[in-house]
Amino acid sequence: VRSVHFFTAGFRETGDDEMADLEMQVVGRLTGAGIRVFGPNCMGLYVPESKLAFMPGFPAETGPVGFISQSGGNAGEMVYTSAVRGIRFSKVVSYGNASDIDESELLSYLATDPQTDAVCAYIEGVKHGRRFFQAMREAARAKPVVVLKGGRTASGTRAVMSHTASLAGSLDVFDSLCRQVNAVRVNSVEEMADLAVAFRYMSAPAGPGVAVVGGGGGFSVFAADEIDDAGLNCPVLPQNTQRALSEINPVAGTSVRNPVDTIAIFEPPKLEQTLRIIGEAENIDAILYHTSFSWGRGRRSMAMLGADPVHYMQMQVQQMVKAREASGTPIVVVLRPPLDVESMERTAAFQEKCWQAGFPVFPTIPRAANAIAKVLRWTRRRSV
Amino acid sequence: VRSVHFFTAGFRETGDDEMADLEMQVVGRLTGAGIRVFGPNCMGLYVPESKLAFMPGFPAETGPVGFISQSGGNAGEMVYTSAVRGIRFSKVVSYGNASDIDESELLSYLATDPQTDAVCAYIEGVKHGRRFFQAMREAARAKPVVVLKGGRTASGTRAVMSHTASLAGSLDVFDSLCRQVNAVRVNSVEEMADLAVAFRYMSAPAGPGVAVVGGGGGFSVFAADEIDDAGLNCPVLPQNTQRALSEINPVAGTSVRNPVDTIAIFEPPKLEQTLRIIGEAENIDAILYHTSFSWGRGRRSMAMLGADPVHYMQMQVQQMVKAREASGTPIVVVLRPPLDVESMERTAAFQEKCWQAGFPVFPTIPRAANAIAKVLRWTRRRSV
Repeated sequence: VRSVHFFTAGFRETGDDEMADLEMQVVGRLTGAGIRVFGPNCMGLYVPESKLAFMPGFPAETGPVGFISQSGGNAGEMVYTSAVRGIRFSKVVSYGNASDIDESELLSYLATDPQTDAVCAYIEGVKHGRRFFQAMREAARAKPVVVLKGGRTASGTRAVMSHTASLAGSLDVFDSLCRQVNAVRVNSVEEMADLAVAFRYMSAPAGPGVAVVGGGGGFSVFAADEIDDAGLNCPVLPQNTQRALSEINPVAGTSVRNPVDTIAIFEPPKLEQTLRIIGEAENIDAILYHTSFSWGRGRRSMAMLGADPVHYMQMQVQQMVKAREASGTPIVVVLRPPLDVESMERTAAFQEKCWQAGFPVFPTIPRAANAIAKVLRWTRRRSV
Repeated sequence: VRSVHFFTAGFRETGDDEMADLEMQVVGRLTGAGIRVFGPNCMGLYVPESKLAFMPGFPAETGPVGFISQSGGNAGEMVYTSAVRGIRFSKVVSYGNASDIDESELLSYLATDPQTDAVCAYIEGVKHGRRFFQAMREAARAKPVVVLKGGRTASGTRAVMSHTASLAGSLDVFDSLCRQVNAVRVNSVEEMADLAVAFRYMSAPAGPGVAVVGGGGGFSVFAADEIDDAGLNCPVLPQNTQRALSEINPVAGTSVRNPVDTIAIFEPPKLEQTLRIIGEAENIDAILYHTSFSWGRGRRSMAMLGADPVHYMQMQVQQMVKAREASGTPIVVVLRPPLDVESMERTAAFQEKCWQAGFPVFPTIPRAANAIAKVLRWTRRRSV
């Protein structure tokens, strides 16, 4: 036996001194005998290559994301919610109370793991500040590192003590450490999945200029506000771009300035033309293409075209691929969440086609804009 | 003919002076003949009682929420996304360029409309500041008013001009107006739906003390952080409450301090006991109960119990009702979004049972906490 994994909870995190002593004794004996310990109070390992998994329904395929998590539940949430967005994992380690193997050791391991291209970490408390700083620096030099800190507030700090007996420490210190080593700090599992998707499926934009394309004037207004909120911008398209778009669009109900609000895109060939023309504009570094299968034109178009939904989606994605190839500009998909079973089927099918063709997919404009902005910042700091 | 509704776009919002003149002439002639005009560049009216609707699939039933929207698309999104959460409407008016009938007139109308208990408004630009202030004050004195402003940023302001030819105006001015009249300002259609749900299905909490109940230690940590972020708090439960909870819970894997992280709640009778004990604690003003049908224990429990899923959900909701009646403390449900067709079916079914039993449902802790905090602030300002 080279390592042991303690699923069991009921040790130090109970707040009971006897339980803490017991944890120290058990772990001490094992490590004394040369056996390494994961946990206690954790769920262990998910390594698709070795056919290890700690929850039902985890994908069997391996992938380039490594994830260490002080919470088994959060690890499960990350795997389930990002799997449907095309994220696959090299190794996921739930490490609980970290009595022996801790976050620093795991980060150093993933930093040099050839099967891991990006590292995600959910951390409640840090055991040794200096070692952690070094491990973070090492990992962040090698690959993108996305860190989620639990216990940012007074209530959260107390919850962390109950959960893994960790000292949450100061968020300011943690935050400045992340800035120093150029790790991306996020605030939720959702945001961590967003960054994993962005690093996996988006080529880094060259600048902050975002074009928004889709149907809906009010939705376009929000999109513009939300892109500015994220620290990006939504510049007016150049005159020649606007002219080219006007040629393939009706005047009424259309805006070609940016956001581009048009129904022409529901015909797949016009989708290709629209995305390509915009992608070629000199002030556009990324295109946000938004659509929905729950309501509105996206749902009705399929019926109107009399097309088989799967075939219609396939055509859409093919046109997106063509436009991306022709213009070289990254395309990011915003696919609004489904509201019923029918739209769930279609949304899931379209999402899968998108990531299989290499497009990152997000459920809302603010989440997409935030991920783009963070990848842009990471890229700029990296090149300094 | 008493009123006309101009669906047509292609007027002033095109930025073309001739189109603006045309709009002025057409609207001028109609109003000169005593005919009132909705629009142009809008989708018109949804009035279930009169069997009027402007998009397919709007609910046929009437309800207590009135909504005016300068965007037809946003109006549709609000109706569709809040319908599944139990929101029904008295009147929804899409009013576009507001050439004749404008936001102030519509707000004044809803202020005194006996079928409207709460008012929502999506506004891009305001025609007459003074009249708008008076209409907002009148409406906000009479009932909760939730306002969503499009065009908060430089990019959004430009988008508003392209959409409805409105001058977005300063967000600071708009914001201080909302504060002055005690209207709730929100930043997205999602948040507007959240507030509609909170005002409709949540009795206002007496204070900021929130208890979190559900399975998952890591999720509990976030919940605590996110409740603090929203300006609420997640206090340690009193000793006698903790003792009572310990009696019905195993030690390992459980925390009874708050957040309460326990798997006991997956047995419906223990769900009732847990919620009741917590609801009776003197420092708790609202309970956030979180669950998921996508993964984790919520999904597995149904299988383990061998129960018919619909029956299991029915039992859960019955126990929640009992606990709410016994303790008098509002219970807010956080139901994580589904990831596949099976979990969509179950999530949708549970959500419907919840709102039918009078429980507000939110998809995430931050969105629930934000809505609770805003209703609490609204209630306190109202009572001054």
